[in-house]
Amino acid sequence: MNTLHDRFAGPARAALPRLTPAESAVVLRELERLERSARPGAVLDGRSPGPLLDGLRALAGEVPERLYTDSADVLLRMHEIAGSGNLQSNLSSLPLVRACFELGLVPDGGEGGPAELIVGRGHIAPAFYAEHYVRGDLPFTPLATLHQGGLTGVVDRELGFRNTMRYSLGVGVAQAVSLAWELTRRGTDRKVVCLAGDGELHEGVAFEALRFAHDVGLTNLVLVVDANAKGIEPLAKPINTGYLAAYLGRLMEADGRDEWAVQAALGALLSLPGPSVLVCRTSKGEHSFRPAARGPARPSFAAGAGRMLARHRERTGREMAVFTPDLAARFGLRGHVPYTNTGLAETLTVGMTLSLPQDTLKVVATDAMYYMDSLSMLTEATTSVRNLLVLAGRSWGAWGGAHNATNLLGLLLHTKVYEPVTAAEFAACLARLGRDPATTHVVSMVDAAFDPPGEDCSADIDSGVWLTPPGVERADAAVVTFGYAGVLVDEANRGLGVPHLHCAALTPRLAPADLAVLRGCRRLLSVEYNGARGGFGEGLRARHLLPVEVHGVRRDIARQVHARQLPLHGMAPDMLRERLARLLESREAGHAPAHA
Amino acid sequence: MNTLHDRFAGPARAALPRLTPAESAVVLRELERLERSARPGAVLDGRSPGPLLDGLRALAGEVPERLYTDSADVLLRMHEIAGSGNLQSNLSSLPLVRACFELGLVPDGGEGGPAELIVGRGHIAPAFYAEHYVRGDLPFTPLATLHQGGLTGVVDRELGFRNTMRYSLGVGVAQAVSLAWELTRRGTDRKVVCLAGDGELHEGVAFEALRFAHDVGLTNLVLVVDANAKGIEPLAKPINTGYLAAYLGRLMEADGRDEWAVQAALGALLSLPGPSVLVCRTSKGEHSFRPAARGPARPSFAAGAGRMLARHRERTGREMAVFTPDLAARFGLRGHVPYTNTGLAETLTVGMTLSLPQDTLKVVATDAMYYMDSLSMLTEATTSVRNLLVLAGRSWGAWGGAHNATNLLGLLLHTKVYEPVTAAEFAACLARLGRDPATTHVVSMVDAAFDPPGEDCSADIDSGVWLTPPGVERADAAVVTFGYAGVLVDEANRGLGVPHLHCAALTPRLAPADLAVLRGCRRLLSVEYNGARGGFGEGLRARHLLPVEVHGVRRDIARQVHARQLPLHGMAPDMLRERLARLLESREAGHAPAHA
Repeated sequence: MNTLHDRFAGPARAALPRLTPAESAVVLRELERLERSARPGAVLDGRSPGPLLDGLRALAGEVPERLYTDSADVLLRMHEIAGSGNLQSNLSSLPLVRACFELGLVPDGGEGGPAELIVGRGHIAPAFYAEHYVRGDLPFTPLATLHQGGLTGVVDRELGFRNTMRYSLGVGVAQAVSLAWELTRRGTDRKVVCLAGDGELHEGVAFEALRFAHDVGLTNLVLVVDANAKGIEPLAKPINTGYLAAYLGRLMEADGRDEWAVQAALGALLSLPGPSVLVCRTSKGEHSFRPAARGPARPSFAAGAGRMLARHRERTGREMAVFTPDLAARFGLRGHVPYTNTGLAETLTVGMTLSLPQDTLKVVATDAMYYMDSLSMLTEATTSVRNLLVLAGRSWGAWGGAHNATNLLGLLLHTKVYEPVTAAEFAACLARLGRDPATTHVVSMVDAAFDPPGEDCSADIDSGVWLTPPGVERADAAVVTFGYAGVLVDEANRGLGVPHLHCAALTPRLAPADLAVLRGCRRLLSVEYNGARGGFGEGLRARHLLPVEVHGVRRDIARQVHARQLPLHGMAPDMLRERLARLLESREAGHAPAHA
Repeated sequence: MNTLHDRFAGPARAALPRLTPAESAVVLRELERLERSARPGAVLDGRSPGPLLDGLRALAGEVPERLYTDSADVLLRMHEIAGSGNLQSNLSSLPLVRACFELGLVPDGGEGGPAELIVGRGHIAPAFYAEHYVRGDLPFTPLATLHQGGLTGVVDRELGFRNTMRYSLGVGVAQAVSLAWELTRRGTDRKVVCLAGDGELHEGVAFEALRFAHDVGLTNLVLVVDANAKGIEPLAKPINTGYLAAYLGRLMEADGRDEWAVQAALGALLSLPGPSVLVCRTSKGEHSFRPAARGPARPSFAAGAGRMLARHRERTGREMAVFTPDLAARFGLRGHVPYTNTGLAETLTVGMTLSLPQDTLKVVATDAMYYMDSLSMLTEATTSVRNLLVLAGRSWGAWGGAHNATNLLGLLLHTKVYEPVTAAEFAACLARLGRDPATTHVVSMVDAAFDPPGEDCSADIDSGVWLTPPGVERADAAVVTFGYAGVLVDEANRGLGVPHLHCAALTPRLAPADLAVLRGCRRLLSVEYNGARGGFGEGLRARHLLPVEVHGVRRDIARQVHARQLPLHGMAPDMLRERLARLLESREAGHAPAHA
């Protein structure tokens, strides 16, 4: 099979019901070509050395018909087919993207162009794909797979970009400065254009990069800012041009809704010596795309945080200060509790808790794409701040996330980590914080919708509860789960009856009776939707020397919608069911197998 | 015993040989008063609710004689007695500190003052102590204990400051903005003065804080900058006043060597409405204090990094790009390898590796006070950058450090962590990276001087080597060590003969024969100068289900000179010797004791 076929054929076929008849016809024709070329020795063979984009370009050449001629229409269709994404961000940047194409900044398989292009505004990759499409460089098939296992929404070298973005917001500016510095060191005066958003420039690392570029005298950096004055929520103030001019010198402004104005200004800056910045005034609608036809999505567990916090405030009367780096919508804060949007400034978000009164409940609502760049500051806070609650969103949306994030938080001084799956467990975490205010309570917030299990750990949030109790006879095998994995295992276990102990604590304090049941088992499985290394299951092995077989995530959470992430990490119910069934089958095994 | 006596009497007595006769006489008199008040019920009783400073103030009142009247002289004596520290930083800020005293910004035990003072330039606490001394508010005794277990060099609430600093550089600006925001929220117009250094303003979080303060319209922040144009090395460019004015509006400059000029300017800014910044031009000598009389200190293992890297470059001819956040001296880079000083910008330092050619060896030379705030960026790098070497300095100087830092690095994707204790082990780490360039090699660099052990793991850096081999009979007990702890245990084990397996890898791949020896032992001890949680010893338990008793660091590395840190963490040779002896004694125990 070839790479293109492997990657796009499945998701494209799955998308067929959502396509127009004309789109379906084109996709089927393209898939037919792909299948033919999937035979060994074909031109589009995955073993060809060029990037994925070269193969797609060749396919577009073979099926040249264009269904749309305006990339804005293409973007709309991509998002309608995907059912999610950042349509408005892409539309906001589309004139800038077109100007980059016109100026030859987008690699076209050949050499050169007038400068290197680093796309820091990571999630506008679809705007490039749409523009590639109308220019005849991309077939329709991949466009129909956005966020569904084919195309990802963020830039990737594989797909023709100079840079790949994964985790860290603001990384693009650092990548651009890294490249500008390297080119300078090699003695060339080739320029680097960095396409950034005004929101992402809130990140401290973007400042670090611009300050460094200025102080070491880099002359080859051109920063292009999509200034739409909006992150997920509107920015508190428009971009500070005085700041940018102080570090980049020459500053121009352009109407960013006019691709010709952008092209003219950027072209001029590319021809002038020295660093510069182009501020493009654009506008942007709602951050997240919602299909018009679809009803409101079922809210995720995380989205209930605002409501649950409000209930806690009513119950306790405690003063509460909530800080979030632009993620209020994610946690459903608006209308439930007052909060301060700190902008895309993860380290400051934690730092804002440092000087508040002891008794105030401080809530930091952030996620695994963010807090990994603020662990020093978080240690500062966990060491000195009382009544600190960290709502650690699990990035299980199309952005992916760090599989090890929860474990890292658990290794910080003075932290306890929980992953509640019922409102009662969430409330128990807050009650525990009230009793133990010197310990920072990190509450992993599941970004998925699910039915809560029938039992929970709210009576003792540090212990475990049997969702499937062991029988009267000694159990031969059992499964122990952490947080959300318990919900998945509970479903997979229906009818199998494997004794199942659910824990909300990453480091549970198991009751002696429960521990005795586990010690008596010949086969023990632990499941966590979490990094296996240094996580829940390894903790059971290390603390209790139990021969637990650890089932967890071995690489970063895939950048896929949640339903597609599950099978990639062995967490789909049928996979879990099969894993549980294997536990029961191998009763003859005298020893636990080697550490998974 | 009372708190003051507990804390200062021991270190002060130890300092007596380094004092002048007049100083000794005063200290002895002060200690005599302390001892008397150490009796239960005395006025200076540690159970009194006031901060430590209140007790010291009372003691100063009882022994009012002043040996010095100029705080600059006091600072010099403090550093001469300590033998280390940041004398020049303190002298650079001394006029600013005096102005703060004159303006009533330094809490004097009473209420009020015209504004809150947050000291972001964390290591100038001694300048405050010196000024307190000449003003009659501090006795001489604590001054003689700086860095020796009594006074710490960084600001601490316990000692009269409004804020405490521990880990994160740039935290002071965040603390100031947190406080300014809280005061604003409470409806007061009380101002917050933040004393910062120009170097620390390189940190991204300082920008995040100033940007936020501007964008939400805080009117009560006054930033005072000690602009001495020097971190440890000179800054590439002086502070950018255009940047500061863009966010803080009103900007004044003053000759920072003139305390009256600073006082006049700061007094004026305090009386004016709205935010502002005062840039004080100062000058600073060598960053680290070296006693004139003492010869050059024995270099630490970490300080040999430059030399060892140069040898590697000669051997392999490989291109090398070295980035460090102002820590070239720490790693002995100058004169050995070219390097880029990225300033105090930890996240960017990692980011600078993102766009370099694959084959270039990228070296990030940083330390545990820094890299904890860049773990997202580091994950970005470990996932996408080949040939990446992270020299992770262990903060075992007077600054302390995060005990868990090495373990966190080990949990990132695509990393292997080593702690070499010989040049050959260091070279083996680099050779391993050459064979496995897709895995980031994190090399923990020991910030202490020691004699290397007789054997090392250089032949197979992933395995272990017996520094004390087991005898021909089956071993009953053994000790397994990670990195530097092996050096300490080797010394402690002299004459005891406990079989001792030394590993350079945090996650070693033990030879089957070695593992068999360990499995045969009834008592197993692991020792690491490292966070016990999620570390080396727990890894042996989790991976091999070995009943290892884990001896590691349970809280952050103490802010003490290294020799004083060792006993605080149970790592002094006599303590380790006693621990090893206990292993041998309890041969009768059939089971390993509970997890330590």
